[in-house]
Amino acid sequence: MRKVYVVGGGAIRIGEHWTFSLRDLMVHAAEKAIEDAGIDKKDVEAIYVGNMSSGPLQGQEHLGPLLATWLGVPGVAGYKVEAACASGGAALHNAFLAVASGLYSCVLALGVEKMSDALTADLTSALIMADDQEYVAFTGTSFVGLNALVYRAYMERFRVRQEDIALFAVHDHKYAVNNPYAQFRREISVDDVLSSPLVADPIRLFECAPIGDGAAALILCSEEFTNRLKTDVLIELAGSAVATDIFSINNRDDLLNLKATRIASERALKMANVDIKDVDVLEVHDAFTILGVLHLEDLGLAKKGEGWKLVKEGEIEVGGKIPTNTMGGLKARGHPVGATGMYQALEILTQLRGEAGKNQVEDAEVGLAQNVGGLGGTVTINVFRRVR
Amino acid sequence: MRKVYVVGGGAIRIGEHWTFSLRDLMVHAAEKAIEDAGIDKKDVEAIYVGNMSSGPLQGQEHLGPLLATWLGVPGVAGYKVEAACASGGAALHNAFLAVASGLYSCVLALGVEKMSDALTADLTSALIMADDQEYVAFTGTSFVGLNALVYRAYMERFRVRQEDIALFAVHDHKYAVNNPYAQFRREISVDDVLSSPLVADPIRLFECAPIGDGAAALILCSEEFTNRLKTDVLIELAGSAVATDIFSINNRDDLLNLKATRIASERALKMANVDIKDVDVLEVHDAFTILGVLHLEDLGLAKKGEGWKLVKEGEIEVGGKIPTNTMGGLKARGHPVGATGMYQALEILTQLRGEAGKNQVEDAEVGLAQNVGGLGGTVTINVFRRVR
Repeated sequence: MRKVYVVGGGAIRIGEHWTFSLRDLMVHAAEKAIEDAGIDKKDVEAIYVGNMSSGPLQGQEHLGPLLATWLGVPGVAGYKVEAACASGGAALHNAFLAVASGLYSCVLALGVEKMSDALTADLTSALIMADDQEYVAFTGTSFVGLNALVYRAYMERFRVRQEDIALFAVHDHKYAVNNPYAQFRREISVDDVLSSPLVADPIRLFECAPIGDGAAALILCSEEFTNRLKTDVLIELAGSAVATDIFSINNRDDLLNLKATRIASERALKMANVDIKDVDVLEVHDAFTILGVLHLEDLGLAKKGEGWKLVKEGEIEVGGKIPTNTMGGLKARGHPVGATGMYQALEILTQLRGEAGKNQVEDAEVGLAQNVGGLGGTVTINVFRRVR
Repeated sequence: MRKVYVVGGGAIRIGEHWTFSLRDLMVHAAEKAIEDAGIDKKDVEAIYVGNMSSGPLQGQEHLGPLLATWLGVPGVAGYKVEAACASGGAALHNAFLAVASGLYSCVLALGVEKMSDALTADLTSALIMADDQEYVAFTGTSFVGLNALVYRAYMERFRVRQEDIALFAVHDHKYAVNNPYAQFRREISVDDVLSSPLVADPIRLFECAPIGDGAAALILCSEEFTNRLKTDVLIELAGSAVATDIFSINNRDDLLNLKATRIASERALKMANVDIKDVDVLEVHDAFTILGVLHLEDLGLAKKGEGWKLVKEGEIEVGGKIPTNTMGGLKARGHPVGATGMYQALEILTQLRGEAGKNQVEDAEVGLAQNVGGLGGTVTINVFRRVR
């Protein structure tokens, strides 16, 4: 396998973009990534678009040629990769394979989702398509409803109080303040979280990642291609893996054990030849506060039932043992579902380049991004390393 | 790049499967391909699902873990690849890259679409998502309507009669008779075509690929992996390429020139180190008769305006210069959109293995499958070669 490098990235601030269509979001992010990489758009040979719901929400499929056309590079290879909320990470994995294979030398990996102009009922229907329509969704449950089951089970089994889990949202908001791409650039307190409206008992509104529009893009290339670029810093995509789990939580042995995280992280860390302890900066997929806690556990950073302690004891802060979601996470940066995996990767890139400003993790060399589809039905892990 | 081999394939007959859900179609095809390859399902490391419309039509996304779970292999990598009607070919290209990269040694590539239980209005809406929603679909045109423009332009520019173009449907039906997977296993005459109902002037019903349910799957693997298998015959996926074109025909220089076919076929043939003249058996994406004719021209087999002559003069018959759609094509085998690219590949495999029965092309060694998304917005070309 050829080595794969990330030489540029760009995004649009997540939010309600009433004057940007789906294509505008994509083109904006792609052009920024191309400019950041210092390449010509004609260098791009293939386009990987991570997106979940453009069909149900925009009535638009076939995003490969849509983007290729409006970016001004028709002729390139292009397709959409979908794995629910892990679509961004899955697109990144396949863009990685495209370069690693030797066939493509320069690839655009992009994630996009446009959610804010959809009706709430349509959004709820679109999001539950991440789970089993015929055996789960048909009951009328929503995606937040499924997470509420997990949340309740966690509190009961491990005797954990909600205010300790809710801290994850407080953490995210603190770091989003300094992220120019973040949807919510303001701090919140745990009291704010616990007094926010109940969405699905016990989940409160401020424990949920918000609805938003966004697009983020990266440029991936081969070692040979990097020689053409003027870059002092060089970041390798050193490990990339995807794992699935049994589709719905009702069929699993244990609804508090999202196995795909363990499987995918073992694969990706082995490929990158690093231990989870070597990771300097981490992005986890906290679509709900409880998920942030579970992910820390399933990544092997805390025992089962103790992930929340890492948050409470300051270990996931910049300066802590494992700085996590240092740009705001899904909760405060925002979560345009198919784009999230690419925002996470972009933020790892920003940290490894030393460009994270007030949120900078000192001497960050290794970063890991965990992107989750559905309730752990898919997990993608991408490990980045600064090589110079 | 590692060499990639196709060591097994399976499918379900295309038709109205009222007792098979989307997952049933997928599992059926996957199990047949695994059995055909003589591997254990535990050998599969990654799943590529080509599908266009499971979101709008079934309310189901996230097909990777859905299939992984119901096939009994959770843990593997898995995702959906979408490129409108070229989703199958695009999934195959990315499965090819997965093995070629060296990361995966055994991959399941599958295409699926379930259309017959959707309302006609919903289907029409789903299919036009292959073109530009904001600038084309919003006008109220349908996908067949766009093809009608192309058809009319072709007849006028080249002074060709409809009965000569309509022959493509007659050709397809003749070969579908002997294909156990074909939706319409009966012959039709050119009079049948011309007297069938008008769908979008000048396109007649019997010039349109039908609506149907289907799934087809292939097993791709590395050279090392093939050593474990007992196979007398071995088929290499020797060339694989994807190209996009300007998204909508109204923005192109010439609406009779589907450039992506030329670009992708040049790439794939070069990779396989063969000339188009070396191709023994060909599958083209004749969603409408006019497209079959155009594809022959864009592949370089006939001059512009003369593709229909190849059909009329018997050159695309078994025994002709370039045997084409020898298993019934989209018109008579059927066209479950996201699955079509995989059916085409499976039928090339059948021919190269010498298992095509009455439709067998003698000593077929090289086969090419062309799969098209939208009106040529995406074209995938996969070139197969019998290596022993």
